[in-house]
Formats: sequence, C-alpha cells, structure tokens
Amino acid sequence: MIKFDASKLAQIPDLPDFNKTIAEMKGFAETLHNGTGAGSDMLGWLELPRKSKADAFTIEKIASQIKSEDATLICIGIGGSYLGAEAVISALNPLAKVVFAGHHLEPGYLMDIMDWIDDGPVYLNVISKSGTTTEPGLVFRILLKWLKKRYPKDWADHIIATTDPESGALRAMAQSQNFTTFSIPPDVGGRFSVLTPVGLFPIAAAGLDIGALLNGASKMAKALKTDRSENNPAYQLAAVRTELYRAGYKIEALASFNPRLRQFAEWWKQLAGESEGKEHQGIFPASCIYTTDLHSLGQWVQEGERTIMETFLWFEKPANDLVIPAAGDEDGLGYLEGRSMAEIQGLVKDAVMDAHTQGGVPCSLVSVPALDEYHLGGLLYFFEYVVALTGYALGVNPFNQPGVEAYKQEMFRRLGKPGA
Amino acid sequence: MIKFDASKLAQIPDLPDFNKTIAEMKGFAETLHNGTGAGSDMLGWLELPRKSKADAFTIEKIASQIKSEDATLICIGIGGSYLGAEAVISALNPLAKVVFAGHHLEPGYLMDIMDWIDDGPVYLNVISKSGTTTEPGLVFRILLKWLKKRYPKDWADHIIATTDPESGALRAMAQSQNFTTFSIPPDVGGRFSVLTPVGLFPIAAAGLDIGALLNGASKMAKALKTDRSENNPAYQLAAVRTELYRAGYKIEALASFNPRLRQFAEWWKQLAGESEGKEHQGIFPASCIYTTDLHSLGQWVQEGERTIMETFLWFEKPANDLVIPAAGDEDGLGYLEGRSMAEIQGLVKDAVMDAHTQGGVPCSLVSVPALDEYHLGGLLYFFEYVVALTGYALGVNPFNQPGVEAYKQEMFRRLGKPGA
Repeated sequence: MIKFDASKLAQIPDLPDFNKTIAEMKGFAETLHNGTGAGSDMLGWLELPRKSKADAFTIEKIASQIKSEDATLICIGIGGSYLGAEAVISALNPLAKVVFAGHHLEPGYLMDIMDWIDDGPVYLNVISKSGTTTEPGLVFRILLKWLKKRYPKDWADHIIATTDPESGALRAMAQSQNFTTFSIPPDVGGRFSVLTPVGLFPIAAAGLDIGALLNGASKMAKALKTDRSENNPAYQLAAVRTELYRAGYKIEALASFNPRLRQFAEWWKQLAGESEGKEHQGIFPASCIYTTDLHSLGQWVQEGERTIMETFLWFEKPANDLVIPAAGDEDGLGYLEGRSMAEIQGLVKDAVMDAHTQGGVPCSLVSVPALDEYHLGGLLYFFEYVVALTGYALGVNPFNQPGVEAYKQEMFRRLGKPGA
Repeated sequence: MIKFDASKLAQIPDLPDFNKTIAEMKGFAETLHNGTGAGSDMLGWLELPRKSKADAFTIEKIASQIKSEDATLICIGIGGSYLGAEAVISALNPLAKVVFAGHHLEPGYLMDIMDWIDDGPVYLNVISKSGTTTEPGLVFRILLKWLKKRYPKDWADHIIATTDPESGALRAMAQSQNFTTFSIPPDVGGRFSVLTPVGLFPIAAAGLDIGALLNGASKMAKALKTDRSENNPAYQLAAVRTELYRAGYKIEALASFNPRLRQFAEWWKQLAGESEGKEHQGIFPASCIYTTDLHSLGQWVQEGERTIMETFLWFEKPANDLVIPAAGDEDGLGYLEGRSMAEIQGLVKDAVMDAHTQGGVPCSLVSVPALDEYHLGGLLYFFEYVVALTGYALGVNPFNQPGVEAYKQEMFRRLGKPGA
C-alpha cells in the first residue's frame, strides 16, 4: 500500500548504518503494542481504524442531512481538533462547504466567515474535549450568539458537539441543551484523533467516504502490526529519521508536489513536532510544496546548511491530467508539446530528488498508489506509527505535549483568569 | 514607522554582544548604497519606491478597467513573480478576484481555476523576465488555449505581459500580438520585485492603493538610508539575526498573529532563504501563525532543540474587533465577557513572547502601527534591506540564487530538452 525508498541515501557520504536501527525498531514496536512505553495511557489511536467503524453509520447519517440541505459546516477547534479534518478535506475536496474557526483569535477572520455565509443554512461542530480551551471557547460564544439570531427557536438543532464521552463543560452543555453529540475517546490525544469523530464527522460532511478512509487505515494498521521484519516501511522511515537526526540533520522537510497537500503537511508538522520536540531535542518539521518552493526555500535546500533531510511524498496515479498544447517554439517549450503534465511532474520529482541528493541532502521517498480516501487513511496511520517509533527511539514520550501549557499559563495570568 | 524591540534578548544567557555588530552594519549599508558589494548589478530595488511612482498611473488605469468589468485576473508566475503580490493581496483583501497560477505543475489546480471562473470576464497577467521558464510557460500555453476559445477575436486584449523591457521570448510575443505590457527593471531580482509592476499591477487589480504602498516604502527607504546610527531598526534586526545565527540559532521563525499574514510569511521565506541560504550557510526561515501554531509547532518551539530564534511581527492598531458576549461561566471563560478580542490578542502576544523567552528562545519584535498599504509598503522594504545587510554580514552575495539552477538542469535532462 505504501512503498518506502531510501536508496538515494547511499549517495550521501558518511551516513550511519541504518540497518541496525531498523532492527531496533522491532523492539519499539513491541513496546508500543504491549503498552509498556511512556504515554501508554494514550494508545487508543492504535485501534481506531477498527473501533471507529462502529461510529461511521451515525456520523454519515448526520453528515448526509447537512449535505442534503447544502448547508455550511463551521468546525470550531484548535490543534488536533481541526488539522486532520482540514488535511483530508483540502486534499480531496477543497471546495466543500466546511470551514474552520476557533483555531486563533483574529476577529477579522470570524467576521469574514459570518459575511461569507449569507443566508444559507449553517451548522456548528464544536470540537473540544473539555469545552474550556480559550480560543475555541471564545469563538463558540461569538458564533453561538450569531446562530441564535439566525435560528431563534431551534438553534440547538444546528449544533453538533464532539467532546468527552462523560465529563467536561461541553458535555454538560450538550446534555442540558440536547445537542447532537459525538465522543472523543479519552485515550486518544488531539494530534492522533483524525480517525475519531473529531476528523470523521467534518470529513463526511465534506462528502468524502469515511468508510474507505477507515478501511485504508485498517489495512495499514494490520500490516504494520503484523510485519515485524526489516521490510516494515514504518520501521525503515523511523530508523532513517532517527539516524539522520543523530547525524546532524536537524530539520526534516516533507516535500510534495500538489498544493492540495499544504494542509496535510500542516497536520504532519503538528504530529511530528508535538510528539518529538521536547526535552531540548526533536527534528524540526518543515514542509515544501514543489515546484513552487524550488523558487523559494529550494535555494536554501540546495546550497544552505547541510542540516536538512527531505521526506518526499508522492502519489503515483495522477488524479487529473492535462496535455501541453502546441504553440510553436517561441517560448523554448516546443519539445514538451503533446506531453502530459502528470508525466512531466513525475520526471520533475525524480529530478528534484537527484539535484538535492547531489547537493548533499539525504532524500527518501514515501510512494502512495493514489490520492483518495482509502490511501490517505493508510497514510495518516502510517505517519502516526512512524512518529511514535521515532519518539521512542529518541527517548521521549511521544504522546504528551507539556510545552503547550507554558503559553497558556502566561496568558491566563495576563488575562486575569481567577486563580492564575 | 517601524519599531524594533530586542529587549527580551537580555533574558537569554550567553548571548553575544549585539552592539558591536549593530555598529558594523553601518559599513554594510555603505557598501550597499555605494554599490561596492557582491551582486551590485542587482540593486535596482533600492530606488524602486521612488522610481515606480512613474508607472503607477498607467498601472492603475489598466487595473481599474479590469475592476470595472468585475473580471478575474489570473496571474501566471513563479517565485518572486507571484509571492509579493499574493502576500499583499491576501493580507489586505483576501476576497479579491485575483488568482495565482503557473507556480507549479499540478493539473488539478489549473482545472479547478478554469471551472471556478465560469462565464465571467477574465484577464491573464503573465509575469516572467524571459518567458521561457518551464512552469509559467507551460501554464500560459494551457490558459492561452482556453482564453482563445473564450475570446476568439480579441483574446490578445485580455493579456497583460510583465516582462523584460527589451529582450526575451515574452517581450517578442507581446510585441507581435500587441499585448498590453509592463517592464521589469533588469537590475531587480525576482524576490525584490514586489514594488515593480510584477507586484504592483495585481495589487492594484485587487483594489488596493499602490500609491500608499509606494509612499510607505519611500518613507522607509529614506529613513533607512539617512539614519546611519545604531538606532536604525534594520541595522538592529540584521545584527540580531547575524549574531544569533553565529551563536547556533540556526532557524528563524517569523511569528505573527493573523492568518491573513500566512502568504506574507511565504514572501519573507523566499526573500530570506534565497538571499542567505548558500555556500553551506544561512538561517533556515520558517513561519508560525499564532495562536494556531501554539497547538502545533509551539511544543517544539517551547521545548525542542534550542536552535530557534523568533522574530515577532505585530500590527498595533487592530483592523477589526469583536466583543466577547456574556454566556454564563460554564465554559470557565466568564472572566473575559465584555472584553475585546483585539485586546485579548495583544495580551496573548505578550504572553507568548514571555513563555518562549523563558523556554530559552531569543525573541525580538517588529511592531508596525497598522496593517494597511502604507505600512505594508514600508515593511516590505524594511525586510528587503535587513536581508541584504544580513547577507553581507554572512559574507554571501544576497542577490543571486545559483542553487535554483540545479533542479532545472536535472529536469531539462529528464524531459529531453534539446541541448540539455
């Protein structure tokens, strides 16, 4: 389902031997599946592809009601409460009527949203384990006031709360107001929650096939759990990342070739950065969309400090294609007439990997058969698994995020929160 | 017009003395203005704020025709040929009917654009010094074919070419087909071209005031050229970046608080990365939009490797505001009722700078009075000037981009370009 190719690394001098580390990953995988490592109370994500299938029917039923009304869904959440859904939706259906709010405090953005959605039907999906996080909490207050004006009688019918199954402010409010609700399993952290209703409901509301997404993730989960050999692609990528990091390649760029993957890269940046960036270590995650960024960060990648590795992400079957029309040769591009853009993209991908390798950048490649729900489901799970193994190899707890509290405490103090 | 505040750096132990380097910047500024440094054939950007005023009238006239038809303008260009315009437009009028293409080879994106623009009027602005760059060249072929179907007789009246004043394939084509044209001064490189017609025409077509943009840039140009003292904020920021980089802070995050600045950060990433990332050195430019990314890269910034500096970008006067409505205290946010979101944002900005400083991240602050054309014009020029000084301090030519050729040569070989 996913192929990992690290063959170009052989061209970079003085790299460590990856094979020993690949073999070590078997031990980290056992730690993971046995639940004997750090953060083992937050391993619910491992079983989500199977378990979430039970929710899929209800999720699709409510999503199809929203779609049948051609309504806009505003998702209110921050961090892991929106990045996964946005990643999948913008990759597969960027024109869907699903918008994201509550992930910052910029008033102009909210005013734009309220303006854009003129008189059409609207639903709010408020996503928060606790219901007390500052950004989504404040934005929910503002949008709730607006919603009540719009639907004075049945406003509560236009809210879907995705929250803790039992406790917390949002669960209490949902119960007292009779909102439709979905539950976030308590043993799943935000950045691992895309395959819970946190991600699945917005993705379904965007008209995408969450059954296929879960099937792809299931297939991947089974494959990664079963194959405890050196052929396991997650072991290979985790070993490459770990060893390159130890060898001084401190930055990792996830490099892809489709602007629709920009938000997927943002999801990955949170997953990797929050899981590994602690105790004064961790790879710094960055992203490049090529060829766009070859005329930007590309200069630094080609010739800057030799502290960057690239993980290329490539989808083999093109989703779309166009043929280069004939137009003489005034532009010097006549030699490309009649050729397919997708074919050209494939050759350009090879060229970029070679150029960067020659420049001293360790490049590896994750190939996926196609950009669709099934394969994206597998890919999401694959990266989660890789990051978990890399975190264990680096000796950190990949499932906590203690540093996120620091700004909150400073913020509460300045805002005058009682008790802060 | 711009205030630079590096006072928080005093809280980070073991930092070098910046004052000596600030004083040295005077010498680099003299090198720059005397044209005696590396890349001195590409210093046209220094005088653009004044010189471009001569073009402004014609640019505005043609832009106002497009606006009067409520037409969509498709800008075709890559790298510096689109990043500046996109930065300004998405910061100040993100809903403008100006779209960007030709900055990658993804066919699905192009098909989406052609679908979105149903039957409305459309113009193409093709932006390229040579007219032979692969990505915009191929996309121009495809969009030209589409345009000719739409306007079989007067298609050439719907094309504006921004290109070399005399030579090159696009200039020749524009002359033979009688396109409207604008000229790119030969002594201005792509990433310094936002204040030429490359940026000014799309910005004007988005309904923005290019006169104010140029006035702000003019004011900044004069201030930076005149003040050769240690109070010059460009000297200060360039010295801070240079010394922090030398002290091991290898990554710089441009941190801002408004999602409308995401593309501005992309412009800055090209400017800094392409100017400084060469000869196996250079700061790696990254961007954070807070508070969004506090729940993502924020963990790494707070607790990861201590190799990151942050340059905060803050606009003092809020463009918009909303008041937090009353809604009880079930969500624990009752203490914020009646307060302004913009005021809360300001306190959060202070909190983030303090939290990151306490985590060991050197944080400095660029404050701008307001997010409008005038101040953005000044800010664009300010960052260009800072990057030029930093490049000289690092000992590189800040005005070339030799590494961009590497992928092109590999690509030409694979695509079978004659002679490659």
